[in-house]
Amino acid sequence: MKSKEYCYKIAMEVRDYELDTEAIVNNANYLHYMEHTRHKFCAQSGVSFMDLQARGIMAVVRKVEVEYIESLRSGDTFVSALWLERKGPRFIFHQDILKTDDTLVTRACVTCVMLRDGKLTRGDEVAELFARYL
Amino acid sequence: MKSKEYCYKIAMEVRDYELDTEAIVNNANYLHYMEHTRHKFCAQSGVSFMDLQARGIMAVVRKVEVEYIESLRSGDTFVSALWLERKGPRFIFHQDILKTDDTLVTRACVTCVMLRDGKLTRGDEVAELFARYL
Amino acid sequence: MKSKEYCYKIAMEVRDYELDTEAIVNNANYLHYMEHTRHKFCAQSGVSFMDLQARGIMAVVRKVEVEYIESLRSGDTFVSALWLERKGPRFIFHQDILKTDDTLVTRACVTCVMLRDGKLTRGDEVAELFARYL
Amino acid sequence: MKSKEYCYKIAMEVRDYELDTEAIVNNANYLHYMEHTRHKFCAQSGVSFMDLQARGIMAVVRKVEVEYIESLRSGDTFVSALWLERKGPRFIFHQDILKTDDTLVTRACVTCVMLRDGKLTRGDEVAELFARYL
Repeated sequence: MKSKEYCYKIAMEVRDYELDTEAIVNNANYLHYMEHTRHKFCAQSGVSFMDLQARGIMAVVRKVEVEYIESLRSGDTFVSALWLERKGPRFIFHQDILKTDDTLVTRACVTCVMLRDGKLTRGDEVAELFARYL
Repeated sequence: MKSKEYCYKIAMEVRDYELDTEAIVNNANYLHYMEHTRHKFCAQSGVSFMDLQARGIMAVVRKVEVEYIESLRSGDTFVSALWLERKGPRFIFHQDILKTDDTLVTRACVTCVMLRDGKLTRGDEVAELFARYL
Repeated sequence: MKSKEYCYKIAMEVRDYELDTEAIVNNANYLHYMEHTRHKFCAQSGVSFMDLQARGIMAVVRKVEVEYIESLRSGDTFVSALWLERKGPRFIFHQDILKTDDTLVTRACVTCVMLRDGKLTRGDEVAELFARYL
Repeated sequence: MKSKEYCYKIAMEVRDYELDTEAIVNNANYLHYMEHTRHKFCAQSGVSFMDLQARGIMAVVRKVEVEYIESLRSGDTFVSALWLERKGPRFIFHQDILKTDDTLVTRACVTCVMLRDGKLTRGDEVAELFARYL
C-alpha cells in the first residue's frame, strides 16, 4: 500500500468506558473511532451519512482490515486520519490512528460500497462528492 | 485459507441496541460477537481470559480481517464459529458468523499474541491448552 | 414500590467486552441488558419494536432509575426479569437483574412513552398488546 | 433538587454509532457521556480514575436517575455539565446534558461510593480532592 497524504484528520481522546479489563482500548472501539472519522469526513465533504440515507443510498462496510500496533490507554489523545481510494464500486478508506507523537497505533483499510434498494451501485453520486480527494 | 472443521460454535441473537440507523448490526459489533466467542472457547478449553490475566499473560489482538457478506437485522439468530491455527507466536482464530440457514454473514481472521510484562512471548502455555485443537 | 410477579424473564451471561478496568460490568451495559429484555418481552407479546416503528409508533425512554446493588463479573450468568405497569401514557417497566442464586444485582424502573409523528400518544394500541400483563 | 452552579463542563458531539434505528442516541449512551464527564472532571481535579484504582480505591456507581427530555440526533453538539454534592459516603453527581442553545436534553443524578478491598469507605481521600467543589 502506497501511502498518500491524509485528506482528513480529527483529534480524539480515549474515554474510560472504551477500556477493557487489560486497561487498553477494546479492539472493537477502534472501528467506532474509524467510523466516526469517516462520517465526519463525509459531512465535511458536503453530505452526511444521514443525508445519503435520506436519498436512499445506504453506505455499507464490506471489509475491514486492521493492524493493531500500539495500544491506547486511559488519558491518551490521538489523531484519526484517512485518505480515500476508489476501485470501481468500492470506496477504500485508508485509516490510520496515531498518537500525538506520531507513533502509529492502528493501520486499517475499510472498504465501503453504496447500495440502493439493497442493490450494489457504482456509487457515482458519492464519488462526485469526493472528487477532489480521489 | 483452507477451511478446517470448526472447533467451537455458539448460538447468539441480535440485540436491538446493536443496530444502527440503517437497521443493520453496526460493523464494530461483529468484533464483539467474535471476541465473546473466543473467550467462551477459551473458558471451555479450561482457561478464561481472566485466568490468563491473573497469571500475568495478556492476550492481545494484533490483526483483524473481516469480510461482511450479509447483514444481520433485528430478531436474527446466528451461529458464531471458529477454528484455530498457530503460526509461531501468533494464534489465528478463523471466525465465521452464519445465519441459521448456514448463509455466511461474516468471515474473519483474528490474530492474537500473548504478552508477559508487555513483551511478546511464544505463547507455549496457551498453546498447550489448545493442543487438541491445533 | 409493590413488587408484582415478573411477567417476563430471560437468562443472559456477561460478555467480557462489557467489563471495565475494574473487571465489573460497566454501569451503562445494564441499560443494554434491560433494553434487550424489554424488546424480547415485546416480541413475545406479539409485536417487536421494529414492528412498532413500521407502524409509525416510536417507543421512547423517558426516565430510568437504577440501583446497582451487586456487580456482575466475567463468567457470571444472570436473569433479567420485568413486570409492567401503566400510568396514563407512561409504561413503567419494573426491571430486576438477579444472579442465579437470586441475589439482586440491579433494581430499576424504566418509563417509556409512545410517540407518533414526534407527539406523545396515550399508547392505547400498545396497551392492548400488553393487556394480559397489566 | 436545588440547582447549583456547574463546576465542570465539556463540549461533546454525537457519533453516528451511538444512534439506534430511531435515529436518536440510544438511552445507554447518555450514561457513557456522563461517565466520561465525571472522569474528565476527576482528572482535572488532580486524580484520574486510573490513579484511584492504582491506590486501591474503586469508585463504583450505586444509583443512576436520568430524565430524558429531548433526544440527541446525528450531527448534534452538546455540553455535558455537572456539579457535586456529598452526603456521607455518597458522592452525588448532578449531571445535565444541554444542547448548544441551552435546551435541556437529560437531567441526572449519579451516586457513587468509594470501595477499598471491596468494602465501603467514607471516601475522605476523594472528598479532599473535590474540597473546593463541595
